[in-house]
Amino acid sequence: MTKATSVKKKRITLIGAGNVATNLGAALKAKGHIIHQVFSRSHQNAMILGHTMNCDFTTRLSDLNNKTDLIVVAVHDDSIGEILSNLKIKDKLIVHTSGTTSLSVFEENKYKQYGIFYPLQTFSKHDVESLLPIPISVEAPNKKVENELLEIASSISKKVFLLDSEKRKSLHVAAVFANNFSNYMFHIAHQILEKENISFELIKPLIKRTVEKLEGSTPFESQTGPAVRNDQKIISNHIDFLKDHKDFRQVYALLSESLTKSRK
Amino acid sequence: MTKATSVKKKRITLIGAGNVATNLGAALKAKGHIIHQVFSRSHQNAMILGHTMNCDFTTRLSDLNNKTDLIVVAVHDDSIGEILSNLKIKDKLIVHTSGTTSLSVFEENKYKQYGIFYPLQTFSKHDVESLLPIPISVEAPNKKVENELLEIASSISKKVFLLDSEKRKSLHVAAVFANNFSNYMFHIAHQILEKENISFELIKPLIKRTVEKLEGSTPFESQTGPAVRNDQKIISNHIDFLKDHKDFRQVYALLSESLTKSRK
Repeated sequence: MTKATSVKKKRITLIGAGNVATNLGAALKAKGHIIHQVFSRSHQNAMILGHTMNCDFTTRLSDLNNKTDLIVVAVHDDSIGEILSNLKIKDKLIVHTSGTTSLSVFEENKYKQYGIFYPLQTFSKHDVESLLPIPISVEAPNKKVENELLEIASSISKKVFLLDSEKRKSLHVAAVFANNFSNYMFHIAHQILEKENISFELIKPLIKRTVEKLEGSTPFESQTGPAVRNDQKIISNHIDFLKDHKDFRQVYALLSESLTKSRK
Repeated sequence: MTKATSVKKKRITLIGAGNVATNLGAALKAKGHIIHQVFSRSHQNAMILGHTMNCDFTTRLSDLNNKTDLIVVAVHDDSIGEILSNLKIKDKLIVHTSGTTSLSVFEENKYKQYGIFYPLQTFSKHDVESLLPIPISVEAPNKKVENELLEIASSISKKVFLLDSEKRKSLHVAAVFANNFSNYMFHIAHQILEKENISFELIKPLIKRTVEKLEGSTPFESQTGPAVRNDQKIISNHIDFLKDHKDFRQVYALLSESLTKSRK
């Protein structure tokens, strides 16, 4: 066997024109792959991504043709099944990008070569970034497809690894806590400060430090605050302070209780 | 009036030997102030901080003498009232470091010169840091004490500002969400990954990115994930995945619901 010196360029079809499709498309194109066609139900989204990728775009699945090496389905989990059932091209390599939907969705819809390509990141359409430092996990039903997907993933990321559907789901659940819910904590802080006309800037050094501390210690070791001390006086004082915001109060109460329990 | 060219050095008594006392003490000492005496109920903690500060240490409040310019009470909120009621030195400048306890605790205990000195940070004893970038909020009942506290605070931090007790409490509540609870989200992610033998390192780029995004957008604008898309298929899938961990499941369900509502 000869060692591959460069990645074979692929023709790639993007299904979806959201944050994941936009960022994956940009990364693949930047590494020399050709974005062949773009599909989105939304005409505007399809058009914008088509223009950005300099390729054909459509709002009808039936417009997609089979002159492609790889179809990337980057849509909400709720829509993956419907897309796969309606798409007519069954014999080309196809992947979805979901952390939670398993391989079986392809089998159920009679695809021949399929896999999963899950980038662990929170993307924004308007802030396209390099995927080089972003972990991408890959899964396929056989070695041939696995190697093909590993090669494509490695062309855009330095952190590519194999993960089966069950482990990938645990990574996705962990990511929901680590990104979605931590960001929601920042949102609640932002709302509380805004109401008092206090700048969110003031709290940013604290947020940065929270993350810096993860370099030297586990989150368990870094934990501070009233709940870890079980300082009931402050906890009830804060819950009372939030009396006009039922949602934030509920979150404060449940997280304090859960956090205190986690120290026992 | 002549412009002050250097800060007058103070003799400072520390009550408490925890994370806040240790970090404040180190910062004050580093800027030339003299740590005069250290008190902690725990002999070991008193001794360690006394040695670090190169000063007298004690476990009895009655050992503290009045040859001091400033007494810093850096103890749990639950203990502030008791300390203030038992301390005999009533005529020296005294502050506490709590975000939530108000000025009235000093009045109730017949102190003459008092204030609040609240550093907005998550400290570790074992990782003492510069306080220069750390916001410190100050409150005092009159201009004279206010100026004195502003001067001391400014000797150790570049971000000193005035805040009344009500606004400081909102800052403290916001800090609980921004630091304590976001760190707890990292802890939950850590636990979920550890159970599957997946390295926490894998998720760190995502955590870093979560915080980087706050530079260009509000947390509301940065929010991604199943709950913001109201993707009920994933949400119930994840809640089912967490069935063996009641606490994490409750947190996932409540935060998803609250997050989805926050988008309406």
